[in-house]
Amino acid sequence: MEITRSNLTEKLEEIAEAIDQATFLAVDGEFTGLDKPDCSHSAPFDTAKERYFKLKEGSLEFLMIQFGVCAFKFKEDTQSYEARPFNFYVFPRPYTRQAPDKRFLCQSSSIDFLVQQGFDFNKLFREGIPFLMPTEEDVMRESLAGKHQAFSKFSSPAFVSPDGADMGPGKGPVQIPDEQKDFIAGVCNKISSFIETSESEVLQLAPCNGFQRKLIYQTIRTKFSAVHLETKTGEKKDRFIVVTKVASEDDLKKKEKDKQNAEIMELEEAVGFSKVMKLISKSGKLVIGHNMILDVMHMLNDFLCPLPADLEEFKSMVKCCLPRLIDTKFMASTHPLRDVIPNTALGNLQETLEKGPFTPAKVELMEGFSDYQNATDKYHEAGYDAYVTGCMFATMTNYIGNYKKPDPKPAVAPTEAVLKPFMNKLFLMRIADIPYLNLGGPDLEPNRDHVFHLSFPREWKSADINNLFAPYGSIHISWLNDSSAFVSLFKKDNAAVVLKTLAMTQSQYQLVPYNVYKSKAGVASSL
Amino acid sequence: MEITRSNLTEKLEEIAEAIDQATFLAVDGEFTGLDKPDCSHSAPFDTAKERYFKLKEGSLEFLMIQFGVCAFKFKEDTQSYEARPFNFYVFPRPYTRQAPDKRFLCQSSSIDFLVQQGFDFNKLFREGIPFLMPTEEDVMRESLAGKHQAFSKFSSPAFVSPDGADMGPGKGPVQIPDEQKDFIAGVCNKISSFIETSESEVLQLAPCNGFQRKLIYQTIRTKFSAVHLETKTGEKKDRFIVVTKVASEDDLKKKEKDKQNAEIMELEEAVGFSKVMKLISKSGKLVIGHNMILDVMHMLNDFLCPLPADLEEFKSMVKCCLPRLIDTKFMASTHPLRDVIPNTALGNLQETLEKGPFTPAKVELMEGFSDYQNATDKYHEAGYDAYVTGCMFATMTNYIGNYKKPDPKPAVAPTEAVLKPFMNKLFLMRIADIPYLNLGGPDLEPNRDHVFHLSFPREWKSADINNLFAPYGSIHISWLNDSSAFVSLFKKDNAAVVLKTLAMTQSQYQLVPYNVYKSKAGVASSL
Ligand SMILES: Nc1nc2c(ncn2[C@@H]2O[C@H](COP(=O)(O)OP(=O)(O)O)[C@@H](O)[C@H]2O)c(=O)[nH]1
Ligand SMILES: Nc1nc2c(ncn2[C@@H]2O[C@H](COP(=O)(O)OP(=O)(O)O)[C@@H](O)[C@H]2O)c(=O)[nH]1
Repeated sequence: MEITRSNLTEKLEEIAEAIDQATFLAVDGEFTGLDKPDCSHSAPFDTAKERYFKLKEGSLEFLMIQFGVCAFKFKEDTQSYEARPFNFYVFPRPYTRQAPDKRFLCQSSSIDFLVQQGFDFNKLFREGIPFLMPTEEDVMRESLAGKHQAFSKFSSPAFVSPDGADMGPGKGPVQIPDEQKDFIAGVCNKISSFIETSESEVLQLAPCNGFQRKLIYQTIRTKFSAVHLETKTGEKKDRFIVVTKVASEDDLKKKEKDKQNAEIMELEEAVGFSKVMKLISKSGKLVIGHNMILDVMHMLNDFLCPLPADLEEFKSMVKCCLPRLIDTKFMASTHPLRDVIPNTALGNLQETLEKGPFTPAKVELMEGFSDYQNATDKYHEAGYDAYVTGCMFATMTNYIGNYKKPDPKPAVAPTEAVLKPFMNKLFLMRIADIPYLNLGGPDLEPNRDHVFHLSFPREWKSADINNLFAPYGSIHISWLNDSSAFVSLFKKDNAAVVLKTLAMTQSQYQLVPYNVYKSKAGVASSL
Repeated sequence: MEITRSNLTEKLEEIAEAIDQATFLAVDGEFTGLDKPDCSHSAPFDTAKERYFKLKEGSLEFLMIQFGVCAFKFKEDTQSYEARPFNFYVFPRPYTRQAPDKRFLCQSSSIDFLVQQGFDFNKLFREGIPFLMPTEEDVMRESLAGKHQAFSKFSSPAFVSPDGADMGPGKGPVQIPDEQKDFIAGVCNKISSFIETSESEVLQLAPCNGFQRKLIYQTIRTKFSAVHLETKTGEKKDRFIVVTKVASEDDLKKKEKDKQNAEIMELEEAVGFSKVMKLISKSGKLVIGHNMILDVMHMLNDFLCPLPADLEEFKSMVKCCLPRLIDTKFMASTHPLRDVIPNTALGNLQETLEKGPFTPAKVELMEGFSDYQNATDKYHEAGYDAYVTGCMFATMTNYIGNYKKPDPKPAVAPTEAVLKPFMNKLFLMRIADIPYLNLGGPDLEPNRDHVFHLSFPREWKSADINNLFAPYGSIHISWLNDSSAFVSLFKKDNAAVVLKTLAMTQSQYQLVPYNVYKSKAGVASSL
């Protein structure tokens, strides 16, 4: 089901119900980009801490522009699932004058990729759902409440500026400066002849500046009781006051109440997609994703709370906001599934899971959610990817629950017991020897005695490095920049002899064991 | 005329001709955003230097996504212009594997604005013309030339890696490490049975890593002379070698030559829009824009050369790349036009220039360029805005050329003499007292003795500041942050008395003359 700003309010209850009834939720996000160059080059010998830092620095200025969540409900009687996939377009259009005007990064290759997949950017920018961070929402709610309260306190909008900002508690009216006196007198004349002679109910004053508007508000409210004032914004962002005739004090209050309600509604719409994320977070449900670390980081950072610099703090924050996570890419690349799954990319994995030894889990799209029934062309639409991820998760859960059991069951519910080995472990890409980020405890710190840091002249190519190491068998080079790289030995046993023969100070190159290099770098960066 | 990546190559000559024949060019750009928050808040008491720095820091990470250039040719016989407007969609899709994958900023409100105007982002991302900075182009040309030269030198691609990067001059082949021997032997067997028994002309090897590809290249070229090798990229970005049978050494050379030509064509396409900008720059023609400082900065920075930090260097650079510029917004807000033009915004200005005392210049759209004939709905399409800007320029030039002349001519050609007062002066927005950036000499340094820097408690509102200054007449407040602002007096003569009564060290606020504040800030920032 597609959700845009046109139908979010209407569908919010249905979304809440789907989340509430779910056995688990599968999610997926699409982004305007993945990584900034330089600062954040992921390397195969990053530590977990380093990788978190690189992702945080390099990925969060991009925007999540589509979010898919698919609610799966396990039905004991039929041993099958009911699925409700939602596909959200998300875009931070500055919804109200007070809403922040966000700046965000895009990456050409990511935009190109999405366009190739048929992503509709015009729909995104026109129909995307806005959102506010809770802190932004709080500021706006407070400011609105303050403004509304000030009104009820003075029981007259006389001292309330249009955006509620200028009025401190207990402050009185401003003195009218000499140069403004003519202007204000002109406005008063205009309004009094409007009240007395005009047949129209509404008078639009000419645009003027904020200070002049303030003066008009305070003067008019003391001079005339039969009018209501409101500031509006014109096409060219000019601000002007609209004067409306009122029959009585009650009529005035009602008009003011209506205006306040409209402002509250507008704020609710501006909070927008953050409401969905809060529903997911508050549900505490098991959340599934495929290669989901970036999704999780954006879900938290963009809609709930800016990410902390420290990895351990991040883990506490995830525990609090999304307490149970399973990454299907980690699941698929771990025993026992690893042995029967050659390639864990989403498309490949889906193919693998359709054949033996797997039995595809039974999943039924609920009424009103049938867009994805036989959709093979919807890949990389977030809602579809979330749906597929959930299906794969169900199938893999069945396999694991039945693994080496004498009498396999048609379906296995995703219980804590079955899923324990995979719980809260997020797949880490392109790290040679740390397969996952462990949200539930300390991260792995593998032995890297067979890894060396090598510095060399800029003219060197991989051939030179390969030649240098030729006597010690195959190597893997991971470039850091054009004059240094990490080199790891396939034959780990050769580490000692490499160290002995190559790790002396040389004029041409310099070789340092990984651990020595890291402890030096640590010292250097803490200076 | 709309130009996208589908028709640029075909239309380039027509564009060059239009530029070459032009009396002047009018330009306009559309951007993904205008300013970053914080660092670049334009203030009414910026100096020219400060404003340049703020624009450079705050605006250049956004992208110019549409560029309009309209070539106007003055015809003596009919005393009218022929116009040829071009509207370019520009987007840095990474065209080749070597082309940079650009990251750029977007601003929500700007995107929203463009969408409201009907801008088609899907077309932009799909059909936008790519571009390379000259330095990027040079690197790619050199690398390609090196690769092609290496081939002709060795007269065999044996020692040339697929991306031409691994081969230094005079370097020999790499030794095959033990673990790779089986793999290479397997490939050799496959190829020899392909040559001997297969009916197909082409064999696709399995994807493998760069080092393995290098080994395959060098081994195969020494073992087999009847095949040609080429590296291709698969759908999933995997790289594999394609083996093709060749009849003779000549056939091999021809295949290689065809491949080289295709690579050169691909590079030309990647240079893309930068070619258009180079044509404009090399033409040395008079270039017109409306409020054009950001357009000029992007034209240079994105396609010709990164902007320098120093304003004087920037002026030299503009002189070199775009030697004659006229800003119609500056023209319209300067004597004698200022007296007859109430509002210089593009749309308002166009309306004003259609009535007396103005006589609209005669402009005819040339054949094939009639999209804008009666288009009033094309505002904010760059090509249309460029066309309108050029028309307004012609009309204003007529007015100025005839100003206070006894017998006005029907049209006045845009000559140096007539335009001298406006040449190379770019309009500066929202600076109280410096109307333009003077590209042709030093900038104005107006007296600011009536301006004060005020620090105050965070709780203060404009009302408090207005109250403080009430005895000295109207003021203008320009906020710096929530505890400081510049305050300027309408009654400049009051500066001395304000200084005497308010500028003493106070517990609540602190008032410092503008000049004192600036010299202190200068010292602070140079520490
Ligand atoms: N001196 C030298 N530097 C290289 C070579 N190949 C790659 N590099 C450097 O290593 C960086 C990363 O390269 P690599 O990991 O191959 O590419 P990436 O993962 O696609 O960015 C490059 O930006 C270069 O600075 C080479 O052959 N010689
Ligand atoms: N203390 C205080 N700060 C203000 C007030 N109005 C504006 N500011 C500060 O000045 C900055 C710029 O405000 P302004 O020039 O009005 O808005 P802008 O030009 O739309 O960014 C704001 O971000 C605030 O930090 C006010 O009434 N009181």
